[in-house]
Amino acid sequence: MPLAGRGLVDMNTDFEWLTGGGVTSPQGFLACGVAAGIKANRNDMAMVLSERPAVAAGLFTSNRVAAAPVVVDRERVASGRCRGVVVNAGCANACTGQAGHDDAVAMARLAAEAVGVPEAEMLVSSTGTIGRRLPMGRIAEGIRLAKGALRRDGGDEAAHAILTTDTVAKQAALRVRIGGADVVIGGMCKGAGMICPNLATMLCYITTDAAIAPADLDAALRRAANRSFNRITVDGDQSTNDTLVVFANGASGSAVPAAPHPDFDRFADALGAVAESLAKQIVADGEGATKFVTVAVEGAASDADALMAARAVANSPLFKTACFGADPNWGRVICAVGNSGAAVDAMKTQIYFDDVCVYDRGAVADAAANAKLAAVMANRAFTVLVKLNLGAGSDAVYTCDFSYDYVKINGEYTT
Amino acid sequence: MPLAGRGLVDMNTDFEWLTGGGVTSPQGFLACGVAAGIKANRNDMAMVLSERPAVAAGLFTSNRVAAAPVVVDRERVASGRCRGVVVNAGCANACTGQAGHDDAVAMARLAAEAVGVPEAEMLVSSTGTIGRRLPMGRIAEGIRLAKGALRRDGGDEAAHAILTTDTVAKQAALRVRIGGADVVIGGMCKGAGMICPNLATMLCYITTDAAIAPADLDAALRRAANRSFNRITVDGDQSTNDTLVVFANGASGSAVPAAPHPDFDRFADALGAVAESLAKQIVADGEGATKFVTVAVEGAASDADALMAARAVANSPLFKTACFGADPNWGRVICAVGNSGAAVDAMKTQIYFDDVCVYDRGAVADAAANAKLAAVMANRAFTVLVKLNLGAGSDAVYTCDFSYDYVKINGEYTT
Repeated sequence: MPLAGRGLVDMNTDFEWLTGGGVTSPQGFLACGVAAGIKANRNDMAMVLSERPAVAAGLFTSNRVAAAPVVVDRERVASGRCRGVVVNAGCANACTGQAGHDDAVAMARLAAEAVGVPEAEMLVSSTGTIGRRLPMGRIAEGIRLAKGALRRDGGDEAAHAILTTDTVAKQAALRVRIGGADVVIGGMCKGAGMICPNLATMLCYITTDAAIAPADLDAALRRAANRSFNRITVDGDQSTNDTLVVFANGASGSAVPAAPHPDFDRFADALGAVAESLAKQIVADGEGATKFVTVAVEGAASDADALMAARAVANSPLFKTACFGADPNWGRVICAVGNSGAAVDAMKTQIYFDDVCVYDRGAVADAAANAKLAAVMANRAFTVLVKLNLGAGSDAVYTCDFSYDYVKINGEYTT
Repeated sequence: MPLAGRGLVDMNTDFEWLTGGGVTSPQGFLACGVAAGIKANRNDMAMVLSERPAVAAGLFTSNRVAAAPVVVDRERVASGRCRGVVVNAGCANACTGQAGHDDAVAMARLAAEAVGVPEAEMLVSSTGTIGRRLPMGRIAEGIRLAKGALRRDGGDEAAHAILTTDTVAKQAALRVRIGGADVVIGGMCKGAGMICPNLATMLCYITTDAAIAPADLDAALRRAANRSFNRITVDGDQSTNDTLVVFANGASGSAVPAAPHPDFDRFADALGAVAESLAKQIVADGEGATKFVTVAVEGAASDADALMAARAVANSPLFKTACFGADPNWGRVICAVGNSGAAVDAMKTQIYFDDVCVYDRGAVADAAANAKLAAVMANRAFTVLVKLNLGAGSDAVYTCDFSYDYVKINGEYTT
């Protein structure tokens, strides 16, 4: 696929980005963040709720070990009708057996009862350490507090309450005109570590006041995820809890038609733009990250080859530590490409860091190019472009560097 | 395959390990290490040579971007007849185009001429930074020095001269009785970073004074590699230069018969023991490593599944940083297994760290078990055992932790 179409450059000027917006930017949504005492001295539970009936679509981890709340949500989203979600940080409720499954169901039921929606329309998410039971007393207290805290401008508070090792909240919202009326799409997510989603990311919730059929919302969400969350990595580990859910409540009065239709594409592109913004915020705030790196591959034998090659570079600890140190060691890029499984011929390959060519079909960068390369790598963000010159396949993956702080954060996580 | 048979426990008491031994322990081999000035203030070139005609077998990187010396050696080893190898550290001669290929051929020719063996029987290896041309003037000077330095006890000197970011030399040698006579097998290797071999490792040279046909030597080497170098990882990146070569010169007067024969198995097991010792030394001296971790998987649906699962854990940055910090975060093990592609059912899985069970088919470790786990993880070496309880497949992979020093070493490598 062409890189520009993948949103490496935001070509679409149809969207009006809403500064400071999030999940309560669309009409008819409430949210809150509260302190249930699961984590010390901070908000650790959030709720997002549509004031009116809503449809939903979701994508979840493809890890064969899925957390209890993921198992519950997968079933519930399949109906296409969900009103809200209750989330806790500090405990992933993963690998907790039947008891953990019962806890997830109970947590959703308590939340549904508190806000007066059908039990089957309340989703539940957990994030934190694997292999610990939910503290159900605190969860119940958190839900009691959340009921009273829900409000129309609670999106920012909710976005903060779902964080774990994240250092900043991640939100985005935009306005787009669909069928003659304004539709708003807002979202929030958390990331930081164990990030290499495949079909979803850690925890991400998107809301919209568009009216749309569940199947169309599902199609738009899959398209959006493939251009955003499925193209990022922090450390190559896909979590047991990855969850991406979108709620649409129709409060704008504007309806999104089924595909194929220009207005469906317009909605899907807008949803994709919100998802991409959130996904890039996750990479920029990856555990210990100091750099945002785009790894683009062009001229691959196929798009699949391009993605394999880009992922191999983006996940290489040697490449990521070189990015941290701004070490002009581009050989690690071609080494990773050579290991990726993608077709590659070193005598046809070219490698660029931004506009600096460091390797050109067998010809090695000179000292001047290496000095320019070190300058590029000292930037907060840069793009590595690998031109394989074998075909028309292309793709790109967003990644961050590996720093001392990544080691520190993950050497001391549970203790 | 049964774990004991893979050498997790050294069951074989037929071998007499030779303390301090290496590539010159077998009869009829010379070696040396010299300072050619490629790296500052240290020896950076080595040579190993059989005093008499020898056969050879080799395994090389499966990275699609292979360094020039690998391309040269692959052709030469195919003949089954090689006498020696000349090695430089400080420059990998990879991604250097036709000029780099010509350099590799010239380096081997200079060495062959210096010691008076046929050009086609001299191998050549390089290790260091990718994308730089060999300094041929220094290489020529190094070969001149090496010619005068070759000696019967030069193995230790050679083992030191091939190191890059390694902190210690890696050598092993043993004596084994084959067909009524003593045979010695010795070896040396270097590792440290960009270590996740598939069919070979960074640079490893093994010598033996057994007499053996080239095809039989090749078969024994493949068996040995699969039980050693193909089961280790430092950072998941397979180098462009991985080379594993064994030379056999028959100086012991003892001949190894073709398989199937008990003496062939005896020789192959002995070769495997040397390879395994060298491979484990590479892991123990991985870049920045402070721990040696064995990841074993039992009860997998197949041996292939077991290897996939073990590799996923062994390469997980989250697992490896937890090992560094002795953080009892066993959830990262099951998360990685769930992502590996291997069949897994969390409700059937058990996880042990040495003899501490931390997860038992849905039942979570209690605080006492987590305290014991932290104590195990504080050790210099420990074993993670994942019992999938699905079938009879098993395998194991050796890995090390990810430390601050890994980031430091690789953030500053070329600069």
